[in-house]
Amino acid sequence: MRVIDGGAERNIPALWYENGEVHFIDQRLLPSQFSIYSTRTCAGVAHAIREMIVRGAPAIGVAAAYGMALAMLGNEDVEESAELLISTRPTAHDLSYAVRWMKEAGRGIGPAEAARRYASQIVERCRMIGEFGNTLIRSGDVILTHCNAGALATVDYGTALSPIRAAHRDGKGIFVYVDETRPWLQGSRLTAWELTNESIPHAIIADNAAGYFLRKEVKCVIVGADRIASNGDFANKIGTYEKAVVARENGVPFYVAAPVSTFDFSIGSGSEIRIEERSPEEITTIRGQRIAGDGEKARNPVFDVTPSKFVTAFITEAGILKAGEIGALKGARENGALR
Amino acid sequence: MRVIDGGAERNIPALWYENGEVHFIDQRLLPSQFSIYSTRTCAGVAHAIREMIVRGAPAIGVAAAYGMALAMLGNEDVEESAELLISTRPTAHDLSYAVRWMKEAGRGIGPAEAARRYASQIVERCRMIGEFGNTLIRSGDVILTHCNAGALATVDYGTALSPIRAAHRDGKGIFVYVDETRPWLQGSRLTAWELTNESIPHAIIADNAAGYFLRKEVKCVIVGADRIASNGDFANKIGTYEKAVVARENGVPFYVAAPVSTFDFSIGSGSEIRIEERSPEEITTIRGQRIAGDGEKARNPVFDVTPSKFVTAFITEAGILKAGEIGALKGARENGALR
Repeated sequence: MRVIDGGAERNIPALWYENGEVHFIDQRLLPSQFSIYSTRTCAGVAHAIREMIVRGAPAIGVAAAYGMALAMLGNEDVEESAELLISTRPTAHDLSYAVRWMKEAGRGIGPAEAARRYASQIVERCRMIGEFGNTLIRSGDVILTHCNAGALATVDYGTALSPIRAAHRDGKGIFVYVDETRPWLQGSRLTAWELTNESIPHAIIADNAAGYFLRKEVKCVIVGADRIASNGDFANKIGTYEKAVVARENGVPFYVAAPVSTFDFSIGSGSEIRIEERSPEEITTIRGQRIAGDGEKARNPVFDVTPSKFVTAFITEAGILKAGEIGALKGARENGALR
Repeated sequence: MRVIDGGAERNIPALWYENGEVHFIDQRLLPSQFSIYSTRTCAGVAHAIREMIVRGAPAIGVAAAYGMALAMLGNEDVEESAELLISTRPTAHDLSYAVRWMKEAGRGIGPAEAARRYASQIVERCRMIGEFGNTLIRSGDVILTHCNAGALATVDYGTALSPIRAAHRDGKGIFVYVDETRPWLQGSRLTAWELTNESIPHAIIADNAAGYFLRKEVKCVIVGADRIASNGDFANKIGTYEKAVVARENGVPFYVAAPVSTFDFSIGSGSEIRIEERSPEEITTIRGQRIAGDGEKARNPVFDVTPSKFVTAFITEAGILKAGEIGALKGARENGALR
């Protein structure tokens, strides 16, 4: 992704592997500070996922692949390392998908090469998501996105942001409303930063204002996903469900952009998805500053499940699918066609 | 309202008039600082409304009544003062309602007495809203509220919080989810503070999480209003529209609590309500701390309009009404029955 850091322009991924070390853009500090976190251990990678130095389902999948590679190269217990990595965040499906991939491919082509290939596959899949998704975007469209499903969340391109990047590249004159995405502010901190780096016109809005703009001018909604069930119900950042319901009320198409690694064919519906609840401090403080009274209680589920009936289509690297067509995707993945 | 300040318990209103001076609890500083702002001039009152030292439709109506009293007592130009006060915030109907009342009643019973009577009528109306609204709340109900429609917004009792106070007083064992209400955090800063002062069990949630809890456990939603059109469309804090749409999707009753002063019979529908847009800084900073990148643009509409079809009922001091029954309210107000 294009990063403008202190006036200089660079092209770097959200995380990468080099000489036995994994490097991450530290997403906790953006946009006020651009800093790299590096680690040589699987435990260090698990720390980076748990503390949200890296976040976003496809990106934490890649992180897990690198973590497995470090464990394998360091002759650590593979099962223990796999368990450690999967336990960091409960909702994203990509974690277990990447770990399974590494157990298999790592034995064949070697751990470092397997992890690198996993990462470059994700990047290529995201690029394809952009090409397919771009066909859904018309000139002059006003697009709403929620959270960050950008290059930071996926190594490069992004899922939801990949069609937006492609449409902008093609000169479609789009405009993006960016939900700020409390509590962690992935929208105002990360998505806005990515769009600014790419010079894509946009404005940040309070999450509460999404409905106002959906009624007025938004032409489509594109979001990412953390886990998609066989029936098309999907988990994504808390608030996605509200935006989906309000989009349908206003006849606005609602698209979910995700690589096939985010589909969990082992579960039938969204009711089986475990929802992570993080610390109440994320609600009662903002960047260390207390915003509620002392002793105030808060609840902090960080994902919600949106039923498939609200999804106009899924944008994947295998094409644009309706919920009813997810089964075909499963067949393709099992046949190895998508590897 | 009950206020616990440094361990001591007091009973004070959100704003009051005493010896030619108007005093306000400074709502910008709560809950971290409890402080009183005082002024002897109409311009000082206008400043308090514009800067949101006082906010909430009924409370800024009372502030305008006090402002008019100060102007009248100081022999200032009544029309100019009226215009100054009405221009402070464009969305709330109570401002012009209070100014009209003062022009009429101020001449009869004197400005100070007229303003005091206006304030005590609002308090009594809110108390009645609590009694009527309480009949809609069942034992053990989990209630969602948005923004602050409490004593701070209405001098005492509140609109949305008045039925909640009454239900708690009657031992109904209720629990309240408080939307934090970005950007100004009226929920986490003000509503949570009021509920804590009254020992009413509650938890703050990100605005994004309202849909999650509406699907799971919320039994009814109660919000306030800033302006209600003749057909029942109403303006309230940004985000109210989203909560209403998601409540209906889940079959959860959605109640709007407001005194008759908030009904604007001069407009037929919500499309005629002017929506205030405040500074983008409220989105890109939180309490002075920058949360988005330098130069990021934001949009900040602070109210939205919810169509009447989403409202289960309006809770007023004249009883519980469906949207179709608002006409009767107009007749009652014109006949003076509600004064």
